[in-house]
Amino acid sequence: MRFTAVGKRVPRLDGPEKVAGRTQFGADIALPGMLWGATLRSTHAHARIVRVRTDKATKMPGVLAVITGQAFPTSDGEGVPVLARDKVRFQGEAVAAVAAETEEQARAAASAIEVDYAPLPYVADVREAMKRGATRVHDESEDPKHPNIAGVAEVKRGDVEAAFAAADLVFEDTFETPWVHQGFLEPHVSLAAMDPASGRLTVWTSTQAQFNQRADLANLLHLPMSHIRVIGLPVGGAFGGKNAVCVEPIAAELARRAGRPVKVVVSRRDDFFATRPCGASVMELKTGVKKDGTLVALQARLLFDTGGYPGAQHGVGASLAQGPYRVLNMDVKSYSVYTNRPPAGARRALTSPHVHFALESQLDIIAHALGIDPLQIRLRNALRKGDTALGGMEMPYTVAGKVIRTAAEKAGWQRRRRSSGRGAKARGFGLAAGHWSVWAGASSAWVQVNEDGTISVVTGAINLTGTNTSFAQIAAESFGILVERVTVHQGDTDTSPRNDGSWGSRVLFGVGEAVRRACEDAKRQLAEGLSEEMGVPADRILVSEGQVSVRGKAGRSLTLAEAASRAADYRGAIIGRGALSDLPFAVAVAAQVAEVEVDRETGQVEVKRLTCSQDVGRAINPMSVEGQVEGAASQGIGYGLCEEYIYGTDGTLLNDNFMDFRMPTSVDHPQYQVALIEEGLDGGPFGAKGVGEPPLVPTAAAIANAVYDAVGVRVKQLPIKPESIVRALSGGR
Amino acid sequence: MRFTAVGKRVPRLDGPEKVAGRTQFGADIALPGMLWGATLRSTHAHARIVRVRTDKATKMPGVLAVITGQAFPTSDGEGVPVLARDKVRFQGEAVAAVAAETEEQARAAASAIEVDYAPLPYVADVREAMKRGATRVHDESEDPKHPNIAGVAEVKRGDVEAAFAAADLVFEDTFETPWVHQGFLEPHVSLAAMDPASGRLTVWTSTQAQFNQRADLANLLHLPMSHIRVIGLPVGGAFGGKNAVCVEPIAAELARRAGRPVKVVVSRRDDFFATRPCGASVMELKTGVKKDGTLVALQARLLFDTGGYPGAQHGVGASLAQGPYRVLNMDVKSYSVYTNRPPAGARRALTSPHVHFALESQLDIIAHALGIDPLQIRLRNALRKGDTALGGMEMPYTVAGKVIRTAAEKAGWQRRRRSSGRGAKARGFGLAAGHWSVWAGASSAWVQVNEDGTISVVTGAINLTGTNTSFAQIAAESFGILVERVTVHQGDTDTSPRNDGSWGSRVLFGVGEAVRRACEDAKRQLAEGLSEEMGVPADRILVSEGQVSVRGKAGRSLTLAEAASRAADYRGAIIGRGALSDLPFAVAVAAQVAEVEVDRETGQVEVKRLTCSQDVGRAINPMSVEGQVEGAASQGIGYGLCEEYIYGTDGTLLNDNFMDFRMPTSVDHPQYQVALIEEGLDGGPFGAKGVGEPPLVPTAAAIANAVYDAVGVRVKQLPIKPESIVRALSGGR
Repeated sequence: MRFTAVGKRVPRLDGPEKVAGRTQFGADIALPGMLWGATLRSTHAHARIVRVRTDKATKMPGVLAVITGQAFPTSDGEGVPVLARDKVRFQGEAVAAVAAETEEQARAAASAIEVDYAPLPYVADVREAMKRGATRVHDESEDPKHPNIAGVAEVKRGDVEAAFAAADLVFEDTFETPWVHQGFLEPHVSLAAMDPASGRLTVWTSTQAQFNQRADLANLLHLPMSHIRVIGLPVGGAFGGKNAVCVEPIAAELARRAGRPVKVVVSRRDDFFATRPCGASVMELKTGVKKDGTLVALQARLLFDTGGYPGAQHGVGASLAQGPYRVLNMDVKSYSVYTNRPPAGARRALTSPHVHFALESQLDIIAHALGIDPLQIRLRNALRKGDTALGGMEMPYTVAGKVIRTAAEKAGWQRRRRSSGRGAKARGFGLAAGHWSVWAGASSAWVQVNEDGTISVVTGAINLTGTNTSFAQIAAESFGILVERVTVHQGDTDTSPRNDGSWGSRVLFGVGEAVRRACEDAKRQLAEGLSEEMGVPADRILVSEGQVSVRGKAGRSLTLAEAASRAADYRGAIIGRGALSDLPFAVAVAAQVAEVEVDRETGQVEVKRLTCSQDVGRAINPMSVEGQVEGAASQGIGYGLCEEYIYGTDGTLLNDNFMDFRMPTSVDHPQYQVALIEEGLDGGPFGAKGVGEPPLVPTAAAIANAVYDAVGVRVKQLPIKPESIVRALSGGR
Repeated sequence: MRFTAVGKRVPRLDGPEKVAGRTQFGADIALPGMLWGATLRSTHAHARIVRVRTDKATKMPGVLAVITGQAFPTSDGEGVPVLARDKVRFQGEAVAAVAAETEEQARAAASAIEVDYAPLPYVADVREAMKRGATRVHDESEDPKHPNIAGVAEVKRGDVEAAFAAADLVFEDTFETPWVHQGFLEPHVSLAAMDPASGRLTVWTSTQAQFNQRADLANLLHLPMSHIRVIGLPVGGAFGGKNAVCVEPIAAELARRAGRPVKVVVSRRDDFFATRPCGASVMELKTGVKKDGTLVALQARLLFDTGGYPGAQHGVGASLAQGPYRVLNMDVKSYSVYTNRPPAGARRALTSPHVHFALESQLDIIAHALGIDPLQIRLRNALRKGDTALGGMEMPYTVAGKVIRTAAEKAGWQRRRRSSGRGAKARGFGLAAGHWSVWAGASSAWVQVNEDGTISVVTGAINLTGTNTSFAQIAAESFGILVERVTVHQGDTDTSPRNDGSWGSRVLFGVGEAVRRACEDAKRQLAEGLSEEMGVPADRILVSEGQVSVRGKAGRSLTLAEAASRAADYRGAIIGRGALSDLPFAVAVAAQVAEVEVDRETGQVEVKRLTCSQDVGRAINPMSVEGQVEGAASQGIGYGLCEEYIYGTDGTLLNDNFMDFRMPTSVDHPQYQVALIEEGLDGGPFGAKGVGEPPLVPTAAAIANAVYDAVGVRVKQLPIKPESIVRALSGGR
């Protein structure tokens, strides 16, 4: 198939205004008569709320509204109360909020709210939380043995006991990952206004999921959805951290009570310690193999820290636990576990990076133990057609091996040279793979053919990663016109077709396909509108290359502009609709080779080169896809080497800012090499699938494996800290 | 048919924010870095432009852009140049424009542009303009005898010569109507911004027709439609005066050149004398009748002043020239005639009020001459089933007589008492009827079923008259839910389905039907989505009264909320589409009885009571329909009694403001009585047709006929001035 618009390196349509600083983010917008909101947060990690006294705050200058947990009798869609009611379950949990004329007045009044706490012992670690007699985070738990289990998922397949018995070797390892922030630069922000006459609420917010916001706000505020308009703003980074409601209901309830618009900007500190970072994990793997490296059995116990409130970590963890490999006998138990930490949110690929750090590290351990090339052990076990994965789903999948081989080839795996073993700095190569499954969800789009043959696309999907640019390419391809002749609009919940959130790499896959279907629908309408005039049945009319012609009949053609205005005479506006939710899951595999340099004296690890290979189905915009791969991999470097929440003994987060929470900066980045495997899959637009999450999945493991390759030190705990390496190299001293 | 939401008196959804002053009109909005535009206008009614010198203006403080006619090589969709090129054809024609930092600087710089004019003789009257040897408004005219004819329409039917020969009596009368302003309170205003990187233009404007604006701007600025977003703002009155482009292209071109947003607010004076008011007319009627009052022949020559540029007055004038009556023999010639006046724009019902003033006045003359009751002569001739009208179209129409009879009955026509003939003040009753034909045009809407069963409607139709409220009722009726559970959004040209302008009473009729069809489409999708789960074919699933149930099967039902979320699981979002352009014309008849009091000494006419009857098909919102009827009739009172442009001998408009151009104020209004005839017509939603224009059509004639009834003075020229009455009563002195 030859493409004219798809596969082109089109610069992001929203790029220039972002680069020039003209984009209006949440903090930039204001309304006449706007108030400021501020939140009082718990200083305890775990405490019963004895009393909240707001009388002093209410009387302070400029204060128009004060709310406490009573304002929200129900919790949000994730089970998190907007403001704590009976007790606080993590340090930083919101307890009360204030709206006042100025931000300073609001903060002062919030501080003046008096809360009497009865402190409780707290639990900060999933292993502790799983013990008998552990501190209960939720009193109402019904499991006396494991009161802190928030969710369980199990994957069982084959006969694990028998498989272990038949295995040549069995490996048991435990891996750990830390709490990390998603690293978005723009803090949460929300502005809410309620029309006093109609009672209709409008909320502007930096969110990944405006329709989900609407649903949550409807529940929390007891309003019908027809009374709520959520306007998703340009988002200054999210990575899963803006999936759920945050300060939106606080701003909305304050606005309702004060009768004036209220803006709430979350401080950097609060965004670190009190919103929804990515939770820690402890993963115990027991793997049986044959001497030739064939995986025969996997038993795993995965503990995901979900913080003070429920989460979905366990489900994803379990479903991806076999990696992109054939494992016929499995027994995986995966838990989300309550602790007195912030509620764990999503981060790019949710718990897949956790699980693959464990799996891919252990696979490396196995390869080295068996004396097999890490590349070969992966190729031997790679998923192939007919294999089952994802809890039993049969995989129509043949690309895993190719993706792994491509990364290795591009990185020069066969020619790689380990360091001499001498000198201060040692080089090493590490290979890892990983997978993610892309789910379309509710995806919809409208496409309109304007009278001059240009195209207008409307979706309700938040444009996080340049997907609007890809939509323009999809529409341009569908009609055979220039990308410049397409405009793509992100509407809000009142104005656009409903879409699920911009998460899970679903947007291009699902919404992109909705755009494509909407184009096909519009083309069908054009053909129907012109059928009589052109004197042939509609199905003989072809819309392509910006022309409308009769199939198999030369000469007779109209420009798209002519066709659009004539067809509209018969039918009114030409408006295509695409709406779907039923695409099959698309599995996407990524493989990466990290080339690192380890300083034996300081333990410092530097990633020199990162070679990434990925099955993308079809790269609608290769520049954009490469950007996603490099961006995710750079996040993986942070996860592998430096990012982690450091808590004090009283449960206080010590590194609650971007100075102390260290993310890679521009000088920390290696040379990236990206290879895209395009073996189009049915389902997504022109064979495309999601691309944003998979490339974060293998990175940390690839680095860990490279460190081992360089200096022979196996680090099983992220991040890989210099002190761990130095300690190991010096024999544990 | 029993309705639950249709037919209810629902207050306008946009009412409270308008009443409270919270609506943001064009003059209220601003952008960072915004410049102000100002226009230089011709001081001559007719002159050749010899030279335009902009160098002084360009150098003035704060000036960033200056444009002249060269900026727009083509004219707008109505044939009017944005800025005059070779010559000016009316006083007030825009010649050049300036953008500067402040409004004062822009005005000063505009005044500093030097234009050398070579004045030409000018023609200010259609009779003069039709004479041989008349001054040519357009040099390039090809008709040497009548160089100022801008357009002709003819309606011929039957054998007029023979019919006149067979008539018992023939009446010949000439009627005149003046230039008037539409009377909208908010002047034209436009704000334009062009994104420097993408070259995409956004225009905010007070318009009746955002998609037509986009089409015109695309032509004028040579941009693809995909590069233009027109955002139609809340409109502070329009009445046909905001159909066409006005300052939009000026703001846009200035913004493009200055590289910054530009706002242009038209002054009250300019809005009076330099935009597109309603043109004058001279109508010569020759009518043959039988002694019993039967109309047998109509010959008419209608001259509509179209000002300096072309217009569509003649077509509408000709097509409605028979009134709501059976006239078997007709010869109507209707002309749009150029003069050196502003380009004539539309006003409510275009030239139908002109034509019916003539027709209905003459019918009254005939009735009195024959000694027949004015009611009876109308009933005798009223259109009935099978009659042809509108240039030959057969009328499926039986309601005309009923509408006329209803007005008369409600007004107490049979019990009316003329004044005694004594005393200073005389009472009189006047009856008149009229018709308008409503055309749907491109009408489209999207309707979405939200997960909680509430409904979101999106259209691109400008909400002038509360149509959004009616759309909410239509959607509520379609699903059987409360109006409060529907939200209606007016989108812009990027975000909404294309619609023709909000004119000609088409919106409720056409777009309302599109909303209804979109609801039916969404209901069909719900049924299809649930068919499997409910175990019956989709066509057995019924969506009504907010429930989804199986036809003929008790018990088994889901709420709309349950159904919406389940169906969405199967299909994605539930989004209905309605798009049409093919509804048949809907003819709407109005009849009114005016009860006036005439002061014999001063000639002052006061309308004491106005009884209005109208065929509305179906009153979706009777409160809103009555508001339209009263509003239009009040405009008719102004047209009948006080509104007219008064020009000086040099062609200058003397009454260019609301102090001197007298419109009725709240104290001038009579008691209104409104009767709505609801005999639903196929085509419009639930039988509705357009209601906004018809009630302006008969008012002036009803008043003129009442004046005759009161004091025996027949005034054939609008407005009916006190001095004309006094002069007539005093025998012409």
